[in-house]
Amino acid sequence: MNCKQATPSEATAVTEVKEDPLPSWNEGTTKNSIMRFVETVTKEGSPDFVPVKDRIATFDNDGNLWSEQPAYFQLFFAIDRVKATAEEHPEWNTKQPYKAILENDMNELMKQGEHGLLEIVMATHSGMSNEEFEEVVRTWLATAKHPRFNQPYNTLIYQPMLELLEYLRANEFKTFIVSGGGVDFMRVWTEDAYGIPPYQVVGSTGKTEFDYNNGQALIRKVAELDFIDDKEGKPIGINKFIGKKPIFASGNSDGDLQMLQYADANEYPSFMLYLHHTDADREWAYDRDSHIGRLDKGLDEAAEKGWTVIDMKNDWKLIYPFDLQ
Amino acid sequence: MNCKQATPSEATAVTEVKEDPLPSWNEGTTKNSIMRFVETVTKEGSPDFVPVKDRIATFDNDGNLWSEQPAYFQLFFAIDRVKATAEEHPEWNTKQPYKAILENDMNELMKQGEHGLLEIVMATHSGMSNEEFEEVVRTWLATAKHPRFNQPYNTLIYQPMLELLEYLRANEFKTFIVSGGGVDFMRVWTEDAYGIPPYQVVGSTGKTEFDYNNGQALIRKVAELDFIDDKEGKPIGINKFIGKKPIFASGNSDGDLQMLQYADANEYPSFMLYLHHTDADREWAYDRDSHIGRLDKGLDEAAEKGWTVIDMKNDWKLIYPFDLQ
Repeated sequence: MNCKQATPSEATAVTEVKEDPLPSWNEGTTKNSIMRFVETVTKEGSPDFVPVKDRIATFDNDGNLWSEQPAYFQLFFAIDRVKATAEEHPEWNTKQPYKAILENDMNELMKQGEHGLLEIVMATHSGMSNEEFEEVVRTWLATAKHPRFNQPYNTLIYQPMLELLEYLRANEFKTFIVSGGGVDFMRVWTEDAYGIPPYQVVGSTGKTEFDYNNGQALIRKVAELDFIDDKEGKPIGINKFIGKKPIFASGNSDGDLQMLQYADANEYPSFMLYLHHTDADREWAYDRDSHIGRLDKGLDEAAEKGWTVIDMKNDWKLIYPFDLQ
Repeated sequence: MNCKQATPSEATAVTEVKEDPLPSWNEGTTKNSIMRFVETVTKEGSPDFVPVKDRIATFDNDGNLWSEQPAYFQLFFAIDRVKATAEEHPEWNTKQPYKAILENDMNELMKQGEHGLLEIVMATHSGMSNEEFEEVVRTWLATAKHPRFNQPYNTLIYQPMLELLEYLRANEFKTFIVSGGGVDFMRVWTEDAYGIPPYQVVGSTGKTEFDYNNGQALIRKVAELDFIDDKEGKPIGINKFIGKKPIFASGNSDGDLQMLQYADANEYPSFMLYLHHTDADREWAYDRDSHIGRLDKGLDEAAEKGWTVIDMKNDWKLIYPFDLQ
């Protein structure tokens, strides 16, 4: 609370210079339509006014709040964990998909398909308490570097999206992550990175057990899938974890399409936002044919329904916070 | 923000008359220990200080925030739904457990056991969209009356607990419900009743489907259990939905014991609170032998570990908000 009385000249300055809440966004229809929507639903007396308790905003994470190329960052984490713990698993030297990782054979690894990748994730994300896993993620983030940018992975977050999250919160939206990524992996760092606390992170979950054998309660991660928060899993997850339809939904791939459809079905006015990766120089350019973050049906449906599509190259002045320097 | 300067006499008054945050609680060790804990963990510079982001408080609902006798209120809802929809299900006239309900034979119904009760809940909580279900619950709350008090069920909430929730929130705790009750059933009314929004309600869940067949996205409730948020399910649910250990956990039955054990394992100072139903006149008296809300192991463990136990009869000046009148 600041009770300093503004002098007349200060007061005038405040009126004249209205601060831009989205300074990293170029002026244009994308920025305009976001701000027009927020102004409309927050204006008391407007027929489109939405009460604070219903201002739910959901954001995909991979490729939407941080980068996802050349592979999901959580997969890099899993690969690093296989290498770091290989000594405890001599059988991995001769068993796929581990063998491919230990031989740095990414082509062979990709041939193992989704089943192989899932096995790696399960093997590296279980068999320990939640606290132990958090510590492992924390250590990895503090030491691992992204292959292209040579920066910690959690610095490859999008500055314009940070501003959008903050802008929505300043307008009394609750901001949630709704991601196919593992919830325990994300919750370690999303509060620092995005200002989104653990209980506002919805993601894929593995099964857990409650352990009280030695009189000290702990949750142990088990190598079994519980819930995949992707495609139709996203509205199902939103319903399960949040219990309200979003009025603002933001994604970047066909895996987010059902979440946007769900927001579109809100009785309140709602805003559907796709991020289109069009910037091969500063980030990456990919859409309909990409194996990661494919955006194909979503692009068509956005055009058909008039959803807003961010053209990364033209709508964003910069990509990462470290570009500000 | 109120920048009015207090006059000296006003300032004195503020110092002298510190408002009691828990006016419906009698003075005594229970009230004292709650307030001492909150003051300690919120005092900056204290070795026991807990940062705002980690101030997680979890509350059981049935028998802890509202009454649960002579049967869980959600079961009354399910029974009323069987009666209200019986015309659409002629087979129920000859099939248990429905037959018992339609013949008002509660003894026979109870003989159907947990399996029978679960069947009733599943049958009445599925086969419709989430919005339709919400409307059904809303209508029931507006019309059904509790058999003993002849009041709507959602008025049988505990005034002292409302004050405790508000006191914790005033001290920047996040308050969550963690209940064995159905999450969709609770989320309809918990925001109005307790000031707890849907995304801070953890409960048992049924499976759902995403339906986009007619171009209008909706979530349909399916007659299949997804997750039971009771006993060891409570810490598992806390980990899954909240992602942080509570520092304050409040329950009333053995089904809450694992949640309290989990809070007790917090590295921060934590507070474990049991509500003991000791007031047959104003509410109900039951504990070790009760079929509903049995509190047996929990009473022993509370004594052993020095957890705080509310003696409803002696610690609470009144029970329900309508007692204030």
